[in-house]
Amino acid sequence: MTRIIMHGCNGHMGQVITELCAKDEEVEIVAGVDVSDHIQNTYPVYKSIAECDVDADVVIDFAVVQAIDGLLDTCVSRQIPVIVCTTGLSDAQNDKVKEVAKKVAVLKSANMSLGINTLMELLKQAAAVLGAAGFDCEIVERHHNQKLDAPSGTALALADSVNEGLLERYEYKFDRSKERKKRDKKEIGISAVRAGNIVGQHEVLFAGPDEVIEFHHTAYSKGVFAKGAIEAAKYLKGKDAGLYDMSDVIKNK
Amino acid sequence: MTRIIMHGCNGHMGQVITELCAKDEEVEIVAGVDVSDHIQNTYPVYKSIAECDVDADVVIDFAVVQAIDGLLDTCVSRQIPVIVCTTGLSDAQNDKVKEVAKKVAVLKSANMSLGINTLMELLKQAAAVLGAAGFDCEIVERHHNQKLDAPSGTALALADSVNEGLLERYEYKFDRSKERKKRDKKEIGISAVRAGNIVGQHEVLFAGPDEVIEFHHTAYSKGVFAKGAIEAAKYLKGKDAGLYDMSDVIKNK
Amino acid sequence: MTRIIMHGCNGHMGQVITELCAKDEEVEIVAGVDVSDHIQNTYPVYKSIAECDVDADVVIDFAVVQAIDGLLDTCVSRQIPVIVCTTGLSDAQNDKVKEVAKKVAVLKSANMSLGINTLMELLKQAAAVLGAAGFDCEIVERHHNQKLDAPSGTALALADSVNEGLLERYEYKFDRSKERKKRDKKEIGISAVRAGNIVGQHEVLFAGPDEVIEFHHTAYSKGVFAKGAIEAAKYLKGKDAGLYDMSDVIKNK
Amino acid sequence: MTRIIMHGCNGHMGQVITELCAKDEEVEIVAGVDVSDHIQNTYPVYKSIAECDVDADVVIDFAVVQAIDGLLDTCVSRQIPVIVCTTGLSDAQNDKVKEVAKKVAVLKSANMSLGINTLMELLKQAAAVLGAAGFDCEIVERHHNQKLDAPSGTALALADSVNEGLLERYEYKFDRSKERKKRDKKEIGISAVRAGNIVGQHEVLFAGPDEVIEFHHTAYSKGVFAKGAIEAAKYLKGKDAGLYDMSDVIKNK
Repeated sequence: MTRIIMHGCNGHMGQVITELCAKDEEVEIVAGVDVSDHIQNTYPVYKSIAECDVDADVVIDFAVVQAIDGLLDTCVSRQIPVIVCTTGLSDAQNDKVKEVAKKVAVLKSANMSLGINTLMELLKQAAAVLGAAGFDCEIVERHHNQKLDAPSGTALALADSVNEGLLERYEYKFDRSKERKKRDKKEIGISAVRAGNIVGQHEVLFAGPDEVIEFHHTAYSKGVFAKGAIEAAKYLKGKDAGLYDMSDVIKNK
Repeated sequence: MTRIIMHGCNGHMGQVITELCAKDEEVEIVAGVDVSDHIQNTYPVYKSIAECDVDADVVIDFAVVQAIDGLLDTCVSRQIPVIVCTTGLSDAQNDKVKEVAKKVAVLKSANMSLGINTLMELLKQAAAVLGAAGFDCEIVERHHNQKLDAPSGTALALADSVNEGLLERYEYKFDRSKERKKRDKKEIGISAVRAGNIVGQHEVLFAGPDEVIEFHHTAYSKGVFAKGAIEAAKYLKGKDAGLYDMSDVIKNK
Repeated sequence: MTRIIMHGCNGHMGQVITELCAKDEEVEIVAGVDVSDHIQNTYPVYKSIAECDVDADVVIDFAVVQAIDGLLDTCVSRQIPVIVCTTGLSDAQNDKVKEVAKKVAVLKSANMSLGINTLMELLKQAAAVLGAAGFDCEIVERHHNQKLDAPSGTALALADSVNEGLLERYEYKFDRSKERKKRDKKEIGISAVRAGNIVGQHEVLFAGPDEVIEFHHTAYSKGVFAKGAIEAAKYLKGKDAGLYDMSDVIKNK
Repeated sequence: MTRIIMHGCNGHMGQVITELCAKDEEVEIVAGVDVSDHIQNTYPVYKSIAECDVDADVVIDFAVVQAIDGLLDTCVSRQIPVIVCTTGLSDAQNDKVKEVAKKVAVLKSANMSLGINTLMELLKQAAAVLGAAGFDCEIVERHHNQKLDAPSGTALALADSVNEGLLERYEYKFDRSKERKKRDKKEIGISAVRAGNIVGQHEVLFAGPDEVIEFHHTAYSKGVFAKGAIEAAKYLKGKDAGLYDMSDVIKNK
């Protein structure tokens, strides 16, 4: 049994994780942390991580970015491994994550879904073979019409995986409408589609002479990210200090 | 039997049309026009349309844009209907096409394939229903890595079809990476993918609450454009002066 | 304001509709009917439609097939239009629906989503043009691994739409693995994929010489069917006796 | 420079390979073998491999299945490595291939394209991770309407790759229309679409809770198989006796 503190328990993702944990016998949320108290949970909820003295094996963090520093400090002093799912960290906060990981187990990934992280591993290998054979790589991502940034962090992370497999780093190209020229060999085009309430779809294609290989990932609900966080929590329990990511969780399967 | 003059007969598309016509009993190429004479054809080839005095029912034009003015003049004086497949006409040339169409039958379309033109008809209707229901529309096109322009003329023509079905005109959006904001309701995003030797693929999607409809068109070879031109030739034979497009050919089926 | 009786209010779809109606100012559920009473609703719930004496403009039916006869009788006697969303009706029940529709407004469709019903309209036209040009038509549908029947009723309804556009009726082909022969021209292949918890995806493709057109519909949640039922309710209020379907709702948009 | 004997040089694939070799400076076809002599090639053509005494580094075989035994015997006696691309071998012939491979280098694969073979490698790994996580796997393949067998040999080979990654072997399911039951966990559904002149498209999907991963491969022309055969020839030159396949060619890249 993995005992979890849910940091940001009354946000949307906090509640999705709460629901999923209730159905999973291998985990239990023993406490929550949230500044908001408008939701009645089955576990005690504290205003801040500092006030929460409940024993736990791991913290899942899906709170606001402002709360990340306090959380990291507490995890070090109390020696509780932590899954950082909050996004949009500043450079200073990202540096702090790396520092803290020398003293306690920290897991952080651009995307928490099993599918996307499996894809990242495969893309490195695909890029090595297909890149050497002269195939071009392009990425198209689709998200709902409320999303502020484009392209998505996950699309960029997928492109990074492709680049890890290539012999040299290719540039990212977001727009081709402003110029009239042939595609540069050493670029990866990344297009962002925004429409409806699409949860998240990513497609990576490699096109060579007369053949095209495509890798598609479609998320049907935010539950996939919650599920990934819970699997990460099970994995991180009892781990030594260090910086982990979802690929470690997958390799361990 | 439709007797065709193939204008630009020794270019790539001219030769594809030549091959297809050889297998089609309803048409015959009775003469070709091309400045280049490196290819041996089964029909006589003239250096310019002015020199070609062979009787014909229709001209198919897949030549260079510089030859379009002379061609149009000849078609008027000799009263031969003409299919204009050459692209990249200047505004003046486009105006001339409209003028000439008052005196002889002229057919011109952004894309000659049966599939794309069928799609355009359907998109108008889809846009009327789905636009009213608040669905967002986006377009993704894919072409080979030698293509100079982006997005493709066909993608823009598909977007125009969508706009014809909408109550008010939506703006075209080619890049979302430069700003951090929610999608504007009244826009159609158009993304261009460039990779390998993809002949041409177009995808139009409408996304509403929890459902997505997509229309895909994939061309497997340039033969689809040749085939469309030949169908257009059969249709245009004997037609009165006027400006026609592929939708007329399709409706006539 | 359209006043609705929700027949089968405590089933999964009944509850999805209840949620959506709560957010829609143009409709109100004034009563529910369900044999089960394990859920607390904001409206009174009756054990059977016969016991329910609340005034209403329309009934939405998403109950069990056994309750359909009693419901139809009540709708005739009380002259309340009814949306029949329950599936798996016997031939006798389907006949009864047609009889009842002579006395009161009845709306019944194979699929309640706006997207699928828009697609059906477009497929008729696509089939007319592309069928005449010799294109082959095939359908692939995908659903979750708990679905009992294959192919889906919606896939068959889409094939029926294609057949309406063709000059003669094509046969449906569900399996090609048992024989070694070329495809028969006058058939529509229908394949069923079952995997994970896919809500429902339908793809209709037309393939001709060197080009393929595809129509895709993806449902991301059962909310799309609920939404369609509510739109149907708004439409059916005050309508004369007759048998309606979702295409009437769409045309009215 | 790799010197090739093209066995079956006047068949469709033999001619595609001939064309590609003419443009590739690393290879040269030094002789051809074919019973038919209706085509004029730039290299000498022999009626049978026994008659051909030209020195060569490797034989590419795309002939008829009846010629395979004589070819294998000659390759052993003359110690020339051979790429067997001909399909539809009998069990006895497949056994002979294995025997012969003890004495000379033989390369044989279900599909010669770089893309499909890369996919096979990746599918093993994907299946290991996603299978353990309870994802279902299904395959859909699309080919032209003249293809006799269904599903394609490549689809079955892809399913075999998935099975290699799974802990236990799953059964292949070709038709779900005859029964009314839930999907069996331990099966891989394989659907075959036949339409138009589609060269070959394969899609492998893994669907888990609320997420789907798809791998697509599209061949745009038979040139991809020719290209694979030529790469295999370059690789096999000078290799020791043994049975090789395209995965060896890919790993060597």
